[in-house]
Amino acid sequence: MKGMQGTFISFEGVDGVGKTTQVERLRAYVESQGRECVVTREPGGTALGVAIRKMLLHGVDTGDENDCADIAPRTEALLFAADRAQHVAEVILPALQRGAVVITDRYLDSSLAYQAGGRELTAAEIRNLSMWATNGLLPERTYLLDMDPAQSHARLQHAEDRMEAAGNDFQRRTRVTFLDLAEREPERFHVIDASQSIEDVWARIKADFDTVSTADGGIA
Amino acid sequence: MKGMQGTFISFEGVDGVGKTTQVERLRAYVESQGRECVVTREPGGTALGVAIRKMLLHGVDTGDENDCADIAPRTEALLFAADRAQHVAEVILPALQRGAVVITDRYLDSSLAYQAGGRELTAAEIRNLSMWATNGLLPERTYLLDMDPAQSHARLQHAEDRMEAAGNDFQRRTRVTFLDLAEREPERFHVIDASQSIEDVWARIKADFDTVSTADGGIA
Repeated sequence: MKGMQGTFISFEGVDGVGKTTQVERLRAYVESQGRECVVTREPGGTALGVAIRKMLLHGVDTGDENDCADIAPRTEALLFAADRAQHVAEVILPALQRGAVVITDRYLDSSLAYQAGGRELTAAEIRNLSMWATNGLLPERTYLLDMDPAQSHARLQHAEDRMEAAGNDFQRRTRVTFLDLAEREPERFHVIDASQSIEDVWARIKADFDTVSTADGGIA
Repeated sequence: MKGMQGTFISFEGVDGVGKTTQVERLRAYVESQGRECVVTREPGGTALGVAIRKMLLHGVDTGDENDCADIAPRTEALLFAADRAQHVAEVILPALQRGAVVITDRYLDSSLAYQAGGRELTAAEIRNLSMWATNGLLPERTYLLDMDPAQSHARLQHAEDRMEAAGNDFQRRTRVTFLDLAEREPERFHVIDASQSIEDVWARIKADFDTVSTADGGIA
């Protein structure tokens, strides 16, 4: 990771906590400083990722209405990892090497929270897979927007895909897993109470981001 | 893997060595004995696998003719592993649990030979990935059809996809890697000189398969 001048930021949290709004605030702020800002997302940050995302959300049309095989848990984990590997190689690394600020809406912590927190695989397995996929690239700062799922659920306009359809218990477990992850890496994570107003959440992110982007070093 | 009564067989070797012909011979033989036989292949043994295979061979249409990003090596390895994970969960394991003979045209050794032998990742990385994807399921017997690439190349009617287009040096390296793999697992591999006549190759497979399928035990 030598020679990179950029700053790599991720946003995490369950659906409906306001990640998109804050990502856009941060983008505007970075650009107002005259720096290049690349905003991206997982899954789906590349053309390949979009195709993978389609598979994950809607399954594959087998052409046989009796044949609706589920995607197996290991398959799902590998597809998320493939998306991430391509995302890093095609979008994130080149931008960091140009010196840009890269902001991603979800990264490997989402895999840990959604796949390991909610399904049958262990967190260690998912983490090893992701670290291999990214060749060890972690964000310099991860903003975890945290809120009671009952509140965030009320904010969602639609909950069509199968990730979101998994129900409230799943959302609660996912939140707990995110908070556990943050506790284990306090230097990377910055947890923000997302039940505050948009302005208050943004004020906290801005204050922290100023310390990250002026610090020497760049990528962890 | 307890409780499985089936027999799991894979065929390996570079393109053009006659795997398809011998797979069909073995299928006919198994069925003539009144046993269920499931013939499958990688990549592409499931609907999801077919979609993944399309991505791997032709890339993803980005809708922008200037944007033709390559699939990164780690992405490729993860997509092959995802295909394999689904193949095991959806096709191979259920068939073995029913007591069928499962014959697959390529399995994890092809990933080792093609990805590790020809590209930038190590064999250990690819093997770990595959073993995780399959939850450790290995064939009871692997028939490696071995031939000088100059000869097998002459047999190929078309060499359209990018795997086959990688050239003769690549094919030679792949052959050597397959032979190395066989040397390391002599109990699983059975190497057959595929420059012999179809009848001679089949006679060797049949003689060996009779010892495998009558032996007690099933899956390694």
